[in-house]
Amino acid sequence: MRRTAFFISDGTGITAETLGNSLLAQFDNIEFDQITLPYIDTAEKAFNAVKQINKTAHYDDGRPIIFDTIVNTEIRAIISEADAFMVDIFGTFLSPLEEELNSRSSYTVGKSHGIHEERKYKQRIDAVNFALDNDDGIRTRHYDQADVILVGVSRCGKTPTCLYLALQFGIRAANYPLTEEDMDDGMHLKMPNALKKHRHKLFGLTIEPPQLAAIRHERRPDSKYAAFEQCEFEVREASALFARERIPFIDTTSLSIEEISTRILAQTGLERRMK
Amino acid sequence: MRRTAFFISDGTGITAETLGNSLLAQFDNIEFDQITLPYIDTAEKAFNAVKQINKTAHYDDGRPIIFDTIVNTEIRAIISEADAFMVDIFGTFLSPLEEELNSRSSYTVGKSHGIHEERKYKQRIDAVNFALDNDDGIRTRHYDQADVILVGVSRCGKTPTCLYLALQFGIRAANYPLTEEDMDDGMHLKMPNALKKHRHKLFGLTIEPPQLAAIRHERRPDSKYAAFEQCEFEVREASALFARERIPFIDTTSLSIEEISTRILAQTGLERRMK
Repeated sequence: MRRTAFFISDGTGITAETLGNSLLAQFDNIEFDQITLPYIDTAEKAFNAVKQINKTAHYDDGRPIIFDTIVNTEIRAIISEADAFMVDIFGTFLSPLEEELNSRSSYTVGKSHGIHEERKYKQRIDAVNFALDNDDGIRTRHYDQADVILVGVSRCGKTPTCLYLALQFGIRAANYPLTEEDMDDGMHLKMPNALKKHRHKLFGLTIEPPQLAAIRHERRPDSKYAAFEQCEFEVREASALFARERIPFIDTTSLSIEEISTRILAQTGLERRMK
Repeated sequence: MRRTAFFISDGTGITAETLGNSLLAQFDNIEFDQITLPYIDTAEKAFNAVKQINKTAHYDDGRPIIFDTIVNTEIRAIISEADAFMVDIFGTFLSPLEEELNSRSSYTVGKSHGIHEERKYKQRIDAVNFALDNDDGIRTRHYDQADVILVGVSRCGKTPTCLYLALQFGIRAANYPLTEEDMDDGMHLKMPNALKKHRHKLFGLTIEPPQLAAIRHERRPDSKYAAFEQCEFEVREASALFARERIPFIDTTSLSIEEISTRILAQTGLERRMK
């Protein structure tokens, strides 16, 4: 079975994509071609979109599915003329919300990412810069400004998680790699000096050694760094440190960045800055 | 007017947040307290969520609004007992989609971010690493592997855009800063040598000088780097280069990272890798 899904918006299309992907993921026996048509904000663009949609209809095992977040009712009306099944997000929910809130919606395109949200937006960009400036233990002197400091062995997912926390939620996340530099004479990890003052902000990431070895192997094939024994040793030491110092942690092995990030927020109680 | 909005999910909650924010942004005369309750995946957690929602109802100018993407119908039924207005996303759209697709949905939690999507997921993480390794012109020898190379003056938005393109769309984006190092003797920007071979991948970012000066001033107060004249000079030279070399570009001044990123995709025709 093959169908085509269109995500159509007069803005970025990200809301339509996000919702559409969540819904389509529930139908895993069907393969979906996915096409995003953002910035459909004139009648002309809408008519062209309809042409493209109708053309697709001929080649598939069924008419296309449209997920749309078009605010403008006239443009939405044009799209609704396409030979397709329309999941009309704003059309479905805006009227009931207007009634519940006893308020007319302002029907403004792209509102959710507009510059009137400037303060919150700036927090996200500042958070991205913070994550970059405080990545990988390069600098530790700004840890007092961090919302959270991720600790874990190299390549367990710290950096992408910090960046996602920043971009999506405006959270200032630093990260510090646990390496042999922070081991005592008996080759056991001790609490790194740079982290002692910030104990309450620490959050550990751990990972299964086979996956860690695979990830490191891609980075530096056949190195000691990527050897299974080395990975196992480092992960064991990191876990022991988390346990001994009572640092909360999660296993990233089978989690996506979104899942790691939202679980960290849930466990730490940190508030999303951008919402 | 003050109301509370809950975003509730048995997964990360990101879909509910994204859709909820888009809808609420249409009501700008109402202030919404926003609370995300992710990972509501047991009856017990659902009952606790209902308690929390009902408590809120007493303090606001109206009952809470719930945006939910709970897949499990039993858990959804518990949430629907709350004293709230429910925008039931899966409840509204799954049945009609099942009928249209002539297929039962698999009702699997967190599907859209599960590890079965491993290949696409890996592409995103690889893209993040690519963006970090090829940020700010540090390295230029991997430009042949880039999907796009963003060029522009320092602090015009290149790095956050590259990271967003990677995390959200799995696009491998490098970036190269235009600085005085690439000026000729007459103090005019020339095409940097490292970019000549990759002309077709270049995409320019520009920005209004007053905003650039403000951003730089925060980074290095009262520096030559942040001076208005310097910003104006650099932006003028960058724009001249874009025009002369026919490099497509956009003005980032009043755009969000999401808008910059999706416009780059639209203009270049680059395909999202993660969808």
